Amino acid sequence: MALRDRVRDVVDGKRFQQVIIGVIAVNAIALGCETSPALVSSYGGLLTGLDDAAMVVFVAELAARFYAHRLRFFRDPWNCFDLVVVGIALLPAAGPLSVIRALRVLRALRLVAMVPSMRRVVTALVRSIPGLLSLSGLLVLLLYVGGVVAVNLFRAGGDPRFGDLGSTVLTLFQITTGDGWSDVMRDLMATQPLAWIFFLVYLLVGTFTMLNLFIAVVCSAMESESESGSGSGAKAGAVTPDDRLLDEIRALREEVRALRLERVGTATAGQ
Amino acid sequence: MALRDRVRDVVDGKRFQQVIIGVIAVNAIALGCETSPALVSSYGGLLTGLDDAAMVVFVAELAARFYAHRLRFFRDPWNCFDLVVVGIALLPAAGPLSVIRALRVLRALRLVAMVPSMRRVVTALVRSIPGLLSLSGLLVLLLYVGGVVAVNLFRAGGDPRFGDLGSTVLTLFQITTGDGWSDVMRDLMATQPLAWIFFLVYLLVGTFTMLNLFIAVVCSAMESESESGSGSGAKAGAVTPDDRLLDEIRALREEVRALRLERVGTATAGQ
Amino acid sequence: MALRDRVRDVVDGKRFQQVIIGVIAVNAIALGCETSPALVSSYGGLLTGLDDAAMVVFVAELAARFYAHRLRFFRDPWNCFDLVVVGIALLPAAGPLSVIRALRVLRALRLVAMVPSMRRVVTALVRSIPGLLSLSGLLVLLLYVGGVVAVNLFRAGGDPRFGDLGSTVLTLFQITTGDGWSDVMRDLMATQPLAWIFFLVYLLVGTFTMLNLFIAVVCSAMESESESGSGSGAKAGAVTPDDRLLDEIRALREEVRALRLERVGTATAGQ
Amino acid sequence: MALRDRVRDVVDGKRFQQVIIGVIAVNAIALGCETSPALVSSYGGLLTGLDDAAMVVFVAELAARFYAHRLRFFRDPWNCFDLVVVGIALLPAAGPLSVIRALRVLRALRLVAMVPSMRRVVTALVRSIPGLLSLSGLLVLLLYVGGVVAVNLFRAGGDPRFGDLGSTVLTLFQITTGDGWSDVMRDLMATQPLAWIFFLVYLLVGTFTMLNLFIAVVCSAMESESESGSGSGAKAGAVTPDDRLLDEIRALREEVRALRLERVGTATAGQ
Repeated sequence: MALRDRVRDVVDGKRFQQVIIGVIAVNAIALGCETSPALVSSYGGLLTGLDDAAMVVFVAELAARFYAHRLRFFRDPWNCFDLVVVGIALLPAAGPLSVIRALRVLRALRLVAMVPSMRRVVTALVRSIPGLLSLSGLLVLLLYVGGVVAVNLFRAGGDPRFGDLGSTVLTLFQITTGDGWSDVMRDLMATQPLAWIFFLVYLLVGTFTMLNLFIAVVCSAMESESESGSGSGAKAGAVTPDDRLLDEIRALREEVRALRLERVGTATAGQ
Repeated sequence: MALRDRVRDVVDGKRFQQVIIGVIAVNAIALGCETSPALVSSYGGLLTGLDDAAMVVFVAELAARFYAHRLRFFRDPWNCFDLVVVGIALLPAAGPLSVIRALRVLRALRLVAMVPSMRRVVTALVRSIPGLLSLSGLLVLLLYVGGVVAVNLFRAGGDPRFGDLGSTVLTLFQITTGDGWSDVMRDLMATQPLAWIFFLVYLLVGTFTMLNLFIAVVCSAMESESESGSGSGAKAGAVTPDDRLLDEIRALREEVRALRLERVGTATAGQ
Repeated sequence: MALRDRVRDVVDGKRFQQVIIGVIAVNAIALGCETSPALVSSYGGLLTGLDDAAMVVFVAELAARFYAHRLRFFRDPWNCFDLVVVGIALLPAAGPLSVIRALRVLRALRLVAMVPSMRRVVTALVRSIPGLLSLSGLLVLLLYVGGVVAVNLFRAGGDPRFGDLGSTVLTLFQITTGDGWSDVMRDLMATQPLAWIFFLVYLLVGTFTMLNLFIAVVCSAMESESESGSGSGAKAGAVTPDDRLLDEIRALREEVRALRLERVGTATAGQ
Repeated sequence: MALRDRVRDVVDGKRFQQVIIGVIAVNAIALGCETSPALVSSYGGLLTGLDDAAMVVFVAELAARFYAHRLRFFRDPWNCFDLVVVGIALLPAAGPLSVIRALRVLRALRLVAMVPSMRRVVTALVRSIPGLLSLSGLLVLLLYVGGVVAVNLFRAGGDPRFGDLGSTVLTLFQITTGDGWSDVMRDLMATQPLAWIFFLVYLLVGTFTMLNLFIAVVCSAMESESESGSGSGAKAGAVTPDDRLLDEIRALREEVRALRLERVGTATAGQ
C-alpha cells in the first residue's frame, strides 16, 4: 500500500475526524475566552498558544487531505470552505485589516462540516437558495427603486435615515422587516404629513413580496422533504389497494387457466 | 414582407430586448446617482443627458411596439404597465406636482417585465390577489370599525395617534403589524387604565384575521405550485401501479383469447 | 298565501338584503363622520338623523325577520349577532356607560353577515377556533404561571410593568408577541442582572407554544381547504387511470362473453 | 383484594383526579392572590393555610401513587414532572435561594398533566423537539461565532450591549428575533459607520436559519398530523374507485365461473 493510500485511510477515518472536532471545539472556546480582558491578562499566553497550536493542526490536516486526495480535494465545496476559513488567519491583520483578526472564530463553523447531521441541514439550506433568486432579485429591485423614490421625497426633511441613497435603502430594509417602521413614519409625518402614503404602499408591496419569498422557502423545503419521504410513505400507502386488485385479477387468471386446462382435458376426452 | 412585419420581428427579437434591458439598467443607475449632490455637481449634465437619452429610447421603443402590434398592444397588461411607467416622466412636474419627478425611477421596474423569471414571479403574485379580496375586505372593515370605536374612546386622552379617524386607523394598522403596540397601549393606560381591554380584543381579532390572510396566501401559492407540478409528479407516480394492473389484465386477456382460439380449434376438430 | 309567508319572501329576497347592505354602509359612514368635530358642527343634525333612521330600519328589519321565521330566528347564529349588535344602541349610554355609545359602529360588522363571501370567510375562521382551545388554554396557563413567577421575582425592582399580577401578565403577553421584549429585559437587568434567564426561558417556551398554535391554525385551515377542494380536484385526477383499467376490464368481459356464446353455439352444433 | 390494589383503584380513578385538579386550581389561585399585598394583609393566614394544605394533599397523593405503582411510578415522565414540581416547595428557600419560593406556582403546570387534551398537546410539542436539535445547534453555533466576531469588532465603541461575550450573544439573540435590531445598528453606526455590513450578513444568515427551523417545526407537525389523520381520510377516498374496479373484476370472475360450469355441463352432456 502506497503512502498516499495510507494517509487517505487515516485522514478519512472516524478517529481522525473526532480529533479534529475536538481541536475545533477547544479552539472556539479559546477564542471566546480571548474576548474577556480578565482571562487574557491571566492566561493570555496559554490562549495564544492554544490558538497557534490549533492553526498548526488545521494546516497540517488540510495539507494531509490535499496530499491524499490531490486535486479532487477542491471538488468538495466543504473542503474549499475549510480552506477559506483556515486561510483567514494567515492573512496579514495589521493596520486597517485588523478586522480580519475578528473573523478567526469563523473556524468554529468547521464544526458544521464535521458533524454529519449539521452538514445535512446546511446542505439543504444552501440547496434551497437558487429557487429564491428571482424573488430575492425582485426584493433588491424594490429596495433600490423604493430607495430612490424615498430619498427624493424625504431628503428635504433632514432626517439622517433618509440622508442619502445608502441610508435610505437600509431604512427601507428595516421597514421591510417590520422593525420600528411606525417610528420612522411618524417622525417623517411631522414635516411631511402625506408620508404615510409611501409607507403604506411600500409596506404592502414589500411585505407581500417578503411573504411570498417565505412561502417559496416553505414550498421548496416541503418538496425536498416529501421527495425524501415519498419512497416509504406514499408508495407504501398506494400499494395496498392495488395489491387487492392484483390478487383478484391473479385469481381470475387462475380460473381462466383452469378452464383452459379442463377444456383441453375434455377436448382430449371427447376425441 | 411589409414594414410592419419587419418592425415586429425586430421589436420581439431577443437582441432588441437585451438592448432595452441595458438601457433600463443604465437609466436606473443614473437616477440613483442623481440622488447624490456630490455626483450631480460633478457630472450633472451627463446624468441628465443619460436620462433624456433613455426617455427617447423608451418612447421610440413603445412607439415601434405599438406600430407593430397595433391595438393588440393594449391587450398585454405588461405593455400598459410600461406605458404608464414611461408616461410618468412626460407629465408636468412643476410646483405641487414635483413629487412626480421622484417617481421616474419606477421605470426600473420595467426590468421585471423584461426578465422572464421575474415576470413569472410577479404574474404569480398578482394572480394570487383575487383570492385574498374577501379577507382583505374583512381586515379593512375591522380597521374602520376599530378606528371609529378607538377614536371615540381615546380621543379625550389627547394622544395625537388617536386625534382623528385617519390617524387612529393608521395606528390600528401599526398595531395589526405588531410594531410597537405595547408602547401605544402603555401611553394610553396612563390616562385610561382600561385601554388594555380594547388592545387585547383588537390584537386577538386583528392578528387572527391577518394570520388567516397569510394562510390564504400560502394555500393559494401551494395550490398553484401543485397544479403546475402535478403534470409530471403526481401522474408519473400514479401510473406505475396502474401499469402493473394493466399488464396483468392484458395478460389475462391474452389467456382468454388463447382459450377462445383453442376452443374454436377443438370445436373444428371435434366436428 | 298568508301574510307571514309573504313577509318571509320579502325578508329573504335579494332586493331587501341589498337595501339593508346600503343602509348599513350609509350608517357606518355617518358614524365615521361623527368622529370629526368639524363635520359634527356643520352637519350634526343630519348625521344624528341618519343614525336614528338607520336604527329604525334595523329594528323594523329584525322585527320582520322574527315575525317571518318565529323562533327559528334564533337558530341562525348570525341573527343573534345582528340582534346583539343592533341592541347595543338601545342600551342606556349615560354616565359611566358612555363607552357603549362608541360601540354603535359595531353595527357595520353586520356587512359581514350580509356579503356571502365574507360570511363564508368568517364562518371558516370561527369554525377553526375549537381546535385551538387546548393550545390557547396552555398559553393562558403559561401566562398565569409566568406572571406569578415574574411578579415575585421582579416586583422588588420597582418597574411598573411588573407592579402587580395584572400588569405582569400583560407584559408577558407583550413579550410573547415579541414586541419590545429586549427593552423590558434590559431595564430589568439594570437592577437584577440575572433577569435574562427568566426572559430566555419564557421566550423559548412561550414562543414555541405560540408557533405551534399558529401551526394548528394552518393545519386546520388547510384541512378544511382540502376537504372542500377534494370533491373536484382529487377525484377528477384519480378517475382517469381507473377509467383506462375499467375499459380494459370491460373489453375482457366482452371477450369472455363472446367465448361463452361461441361455446354455447359449438355445444349446440356438437350435439 | 390487597390494600395496594385498592389504593391503585382509588388513585387512578376519575373522581380522585378531579379532586386533585380542584386542589391544583385552588392552590394556583391562592398563589396568585399572594402576589397582592392588599390581599396578603387581609387574608394572609388563609392563603398560607391553603398553600400548606395543598402541599399536604400533593405529598399524600404522590406517596399514594408511589405506593400503588412502586418503581413503575418513575417510568411515566409525567410522574417525574409532578415530583420535581411539588418537590420545589420542600427545598430550603432562605437567603440567596429565596428565588425558589417564586417557583412554587410551577405546581399549577400539573394541570397540564391532569387534563387529557392539554397532556396530548404538550406530549406532541415535546416529541417534536428532537427533530429540531440539528437546526437549534446550528443557531447556537451561529450565536456563539457571531458573538465572538461582534464583541471583537464593536467592544471598542463602548456600547454596553457589546461589552462582553455574554451581553453580545444576548444582543444577537435579540437581533435574530427581529426586535429593535435597527436601533442597535444605528447606535453602533454613530461610531462605526460600517457596522451595517455585520448586521446585514448576520440578519440574513440568522433569520434564514430561524425561518428554516420554523419550517422544520411545521413539517414535523404536519407529518404527525397526516399520520394520525391518514387512517380515515386518505384510505376512505382511495377505496371508492378501487371498489368499482373490484366489482367489475368480480363480475368478470362470475362470468368465467359460469362459463366453466356450462363447459363442464356440455362436456358431461357431450360424453
